[in-house]
Amino acid sequence: MAQPTQSHEVDTFLAGLAQYDVGPLWKVLGKQLTPTPETPVKPHLWRWKDLRPQLLRSGELVSAAEAERRVLMLLNPGLEGRVATTHTLYAGIQLILPGEVARTHRHTPNALRFIMEGQGAYTVVDGEKLPMQPGDFVLTPNWTWHEHGSEGTQPVVWLDGLDLPLAGMLAGTFFEPGRTESQDLTKPVENSTRGYQRGGLLPTWQRPAGGQSPLLKYAWSEARPALMDLGRDADSPFDGAMLEYVNPVTGGPSLATMASFLQRLRPGQKTQARRQSVSKVYLAVEGAGQTVVNGRTLEWGPGDVFAIPTWTSHAHQNPSASQDAILFSFSDAPVMQALGWYREQEL
Amino acid sequence: MAQPTQSHEVDTFLAGLAQYDVGPLWKVLGKQLTPTPETPVKPHLWRWKDLRPQLLRSGELVSAAEAERRVLMLLNPGLEGRVATTHTLYAGIQLILPGEVARTHRHTPNALRFIMEGQGAYTVVDGEKLPMQPGDFVLTPNWTWHEHGSEGTQPVVWLDGLDLPLAGMLAGTFFEPGRTESQDLTKPVENSTRGYQRGGLLPTWQRPAGGQSPLLKYAWSEARPALMDLGRDADSPFDGAMLEYVNPVTGGPSLATMASFLQRLRPGQKTQARRQSVSKVYLAVEGAGQTVVNGRTLEWGPGDVFAIPTWTSHAHQNPSASQDAILFSFSDAPVMQALGWYREQEL
Amino acid sequence: MAQPTQSHEVDTFLAGLAQYDVGPLWKVLGKQLTPTPETPVKPHLWRWKDLRPQLLRSGELVSAAEAERRVLMLLNPGLEGRVATTHTLYAGIQLILPGEVARTHRHTPNALRFIMEGQGAYTVVDGEKLPMQPGDFVLTPNWTWHEHGSEGTQPVVWLDGLDLPLAGMLAGTFFEPGRTESQDLTKPVENSTRGYQRGGLLPTWQRPAGGQSPLLKYAWSEARPALMDLGRDADSPFDGAMLEYVNPVTGGPSLATMASFLQRLRPGQKTQARRQSVSKVYLAVEGAGQTVVNGRTLEWGPGDVFAIPTWTSHAHQNPSASQDAILFSFSDAPVMQALGWYREQEL
Amino acid sequence: MAQPTQSHEVDTFLAGLAQYDVGPLWKVLGKQLTPTPETPVKPHLWRWKDLRPQLLRSGELVSAAEAERRVLMLLNPGLEGRVATTHTLYAGIQLILPGEVARTHRHTPNALRFIMEGQGAYTVVDGEKLPMQPGDFVLTPNWTWHEHGSEGTQPVVWLDGLDLPLAGMLAGTFFEPGRTESQDLTKPVENSTRGYQRGGLLPTWQRPAGGQSPLLKYAWSEARPALMDLGRDADSPFDGAMLEYVNPVTGGPSLATMASFLQRLRPGQKTQARRQSVSKVYLAVEGAGQTVVNGRTLEWGPGDVFAIPTWTSHAHQNPSASQDAILFSFSDAPVMQALGWYREQEL
Repeated sequence: MAQPTQSHEVDTFLAGLAQYDVGPLWKVLGKQLTPTPETPVKPHLWRWKDLRPQLLRSGELVSAAEAERRVLMLLNPGLEGRVATTHTLYAGIQLILPGEVARTHRHTPNALRFIMEGQGAYTVVDGEKLPMQPGDFVLTPNWTWHEHGSEGTQPVVWLDGLDLPLAGMLAGTFFEPGRTESQDLTKPVENSTRGYQRGGLLPTWQRPAGGQSPLLKYAWSEARPALMDLGRDADSPFDGAMLEYVNPVTGGPSLATMASFLQRLRPGQKTQARRQSVSKVYLAVEGAGQTVVNGRTLEWGPGDVFAIPTWTSHAHQNPSASQDAILFSFSDAPVMQALGWYREQEL
Repeated sequence: MAQPTQSHEVDTFLAGLAQYDVGPLWKVLGKQLTPTPETPVKPHLWRWKDLRPQLLRSGELVSAAEAERRVLMLLNPGLEGRVATTHTLYAGIQLILPGEVARTHRHTPNALRFIMEGQGAYTVVDGEKLPMQPGDFVLTPNWTWHEHGSEGTQPVVWLDGLDLPLAGMLAGTFFEPGRTESQDLTKPVENSTRGYQRGGLLPTWQRPAGGQSPLLKYAWSEARPALMDLGRDADSPFDGAMLEYVNPVTGGPSLATMASFLQRLRPGQKTQARRQSVSKVYLAVEGAGQTVVNGRTLEWGPGDVFAIPTWTSHAHQNPSASQDAILFSFSDAPVMQALGWYREQEL
Repeated sequence: MAQPTQSHEVDTFLAGLAQYDVGPLWKVLGKQLTPTPETPVKPHLWRWKDLRPQLLRSGELVSAAEAERRVLMLLNPGLEGRVATTHTLYAGIQLILPGEVARTHRHTPNALRFIMEGQGAYTVVDGEKLPMQPGDFVLTPNWTWHEHGSEGTQPVVWLDGLDLPLAGMLAGTFFEPGRTESQDLTKPVENSTRGYQRGGLLPTWQRPAGGQSPLLKYAWSEARPALMDLGRDADSPFDGAMLEYVNPVTGGPSLATMASFLQRLRPGQKTQARRQSVSKVYLAVEGAGQTVVNGRTLEWGPGDVFAIPTWTSHAHQNPSASQDAILFSFSDAPVMQALGWYREQEL
Repeated sequence: MAQPTQSHEVDTFLAGLAQYDVGPLWKVLGKQLTPTPETPVKPHLWRWKDLRPQLLRSGELVSAAEAERRVLMLLNPGLEGRVATTHTLYAGIQLILPGEVARTHRHTPNALRFIMEGQGAYTVVDGEKLPMQPGDFVLTPNWTWHEHGSEGTQPVVWLDGLDLPLAGMLAGTFFEPGRTESQDLTKPVENSTRGYQRGGLLPTWQRPAGGQSPLLKYAWSEARPALMDLGRDADSPFDGAMLEYVNPVTGGPSLATMASFLQRLRPGQKTQARRQSVSKVYLAVEGAGQTVVNGRTLEWGPGDVFAIPTWTSHAHQNPSASQDAILFSFSDAPVMQALGWYREQEL
């Protein structure tokens, strides 16, 4: 756009505007209305071989009681000073040691976790205890009471995903600590899993009316075979075979602000590049592969986490001749779709 | 309501109206606006021990080629002359013998089937072959191409459920025969089951946009354990533990006009009486019990089918001290709910 | 379809089935599954010049108190013995004389009225009084308390439209008389009209959550200019310019079971023929024209009512060189759409 | 929350984490999970008597061609350096002089305008010209081509409202300049207003399937009488009589990200204090009054604009004994509702 000519008179006028808490739009319009989204977020990969020793070291140095949550935040190098993995999403690696308990609380930011290693940990959500195994995907939706603990003998590690940056930007955060350390277990263990884990079959009595997913744990023992069972016709050219973890009562995303996925790249599979007005965090679960992000190759193997900024080209490849690669991911797609700002472009 | 006084003059006037194809509403208003629904449908039970010999006999007397569909229609004794089990629903018992094929066609009435006995039969729906085992629940929704066949060595029997009376009353029936006897199998066997049978996990690629359920077969091997896994908090006072077969993409009923259910009555369980503005057809699958319908007791055991008219009190009981009772049922609830006419009353 | 061969043995078998309340589907399948809908409903036109004298005569012979509702039912000649104008819809012409009151009641069948002539009548719906002028469209939805009266000095006539045949077929009818003759007027006169009659502007306080339309009267003084204001780009090839009366809170049909329309045929306009799986009742409001129904021409002028059966070709024509023709109509489209059975075909 | 004890060893560990682009959540958790939303946005009022002279002066100093848009941005004093009136919303005062044209373009941020003074200006949206009078409310939704011009003889001023800060935070901004200065007028002037401005009446042909509002201009000549017609039962204790500008096809907000309202405070009316997880921008249209925001009183009269931060108590008062006060406002409520973060609290 053309820039207006300047003069002393104009300069004086413009300088005087600040006293009225106003400013000239025409000086900033071009920066506000960019042709395509501009984001400081950088594509970035965090290596499991780097993170794991640091996380275990934190377990030696800091108690859970001191830390409340012993988590290493994955901080995007483009977002210095912010607690953010992309502009809307936060991811962290959490460690819980045998016998530890993180006290109950609730908050409006939505949270998900994907178990990475270790046996014996659990989450309690609104009175229901959910034992967690590696590969399990567990929800603690907006304003549900929740707490974690470990009854095992090994360290347990999981990936946390939250919409903290989004909730922060939108000023949507409420928090309330529990009055006691632990909730009463008012429901049978894994009650929601038992009621909702089979497809196309919903309990009829007191069915939740949409809103939040009543299914709180999506077991790896179900999700992995479901992914492996998908036929070739379910193969997306951009993602390979891919499942979404959904609210079984509505078919919508498992959380109002974050969609979560499990995808499989067959041996030798290479996907087409695409960009979407969506930011994503991936966790490599099985196998090894590459994701080419705006021309730069991220090499990943089990436990590695990587972030893809919005409107950034990416394509995946599994170079193995024999082994599948499995990626877990979550994104802010539900937000962009709800607001009418979802877009995609094949490249 | 008060009846208008009559006179010769009035009589003459009324008699003359017919020539204009009009009539006096005030003579019929009371019959039109009844305090509660009036239906000629009678509560009725069809005994398996009666039906099975007749059905097998029909297999000896009539070929599938002759019969197109070898089915004994369950005809409500209150609806003489109509092909109807309730005012909106049709049920029949179908027999297919080894090697038989019922040629492909499609129609707008929705159909469901629940397999009662025998191995080796299958349904093909829109290019997908669905092998059927006892207890499986299979859909052939509105306008899907479908055909049946048997590759087994035994007679196979199933319960058919259709909205034929509804489609007939609403004049919504279209029918088209296939150009060939059998469809091409354009999809892998049980493709939809493989993609949709696990709860909270949906394929992301080419996901159907609501409308009809992409899940076409709900396997007994999934449905029975799902029912058994339901906790006590899922127990309805009117139905015991109850699952609905739903469209996994929307959580809505598996067919637009019929809702289908599987319910369990624990040993000794007795439910509260209720009436609803809904008619229902039940099939006893396991165990034995009683349903008290407007004060009359229907005694049922495996294979028995019974119909409950709309707005009719009913309560179930499982008198066994040790054995569960399992009922399959389908109803016209989605119709009454869509039109704003669903009501229920505890009794 | 092929008919099975018969034999004495088969005949005996078939004759014996009735004792079990079952019958052979294969003998009736062809009649059940017709290639396209079959309906006994006939296209029919009721002439205002015939009906009006009969209606006024009924006013002399029968008091409103005697008649409860002084209405001439428009009875489809194809549906002898039924209170029905099409298979799902009922229409009648109602007369109310000065000073008469029809006492308050409520029922689950939905009702609409379109005022044909006379001043001074009103309807009360759930405590809100709605004065009625010719051309006004008034709703009394499912289970709302309603009553009519006339404070004018002339006879008032309107067209009633109800889903009585549908409610009857589906056994959805509940009725309750008021405990008093008249309701208390708990809301200001025309309260809903004042709150909802301007497009794109909704009251924010206690907004109804979907369900029934809060707008109960659609004034002719708004509807006619709205129709006349529609530009050429709003012209449907099948209907000319056409407005639907909708629920302003949802944009859906004004009643759950019936959609209502006002359409304009410009001088000389002739529409394309089409058939839909929908039955309709039309009232000619202004002008004169023809509707060709399955090759037969119905000629209509102001006050004439005509019915079009489902899946029946129809096209409209306004032969006037200078005058617009305006038709009001209502149909069962919401039912067929809700159940997945709506279809249309250009001809 | 308790702070973990520190030691040299811990300090060293923590300092080393940055090299891996990770950080300890436990050091920042309290700041992330605040009990209630924290926002730097300040309640603020911009006075028309201050702004108007500055805006007219900008008209003398800067040409529209130079400025592209001659707008004074209303900059929240708590958000220094950001183009933002609240954390999600932007408002500005725009001036267009006789004969000026602002060239056509489109962008994903949604825009609304409310005309403050002057005759003869217009907006063109997707080929439809919309003449604008004071009090008119005009939409340019996400990705619609639009341009402005003035054919009058006076300066025209309006309030612009956009979701620029939200689109910026979410990186949802796309922009495209028109290839020509002006669009072709492919539709009649005010076509959408003519089709959609009457309540409960929708064109049937090519009705938009939800998504964006087809109604682009809500005339003051309709909106003001609609507000005045609201009965006492429409009075909210928090807002007085209040209308929402909605999408007439869905009843939802007129823009996906912003809800807009017109409210009336009767003479002497004083509302109850409330806070909501929503930020708002108000424009005083008629009358004068006060809004108490967290104990601080904002005094407003015609043309004044004020901003209320999220989760901030506010109550309105019209102290006049005889004159109504009318406020226009817009908020980010649709965003918070779509994401499950809408809350409110009476105070």
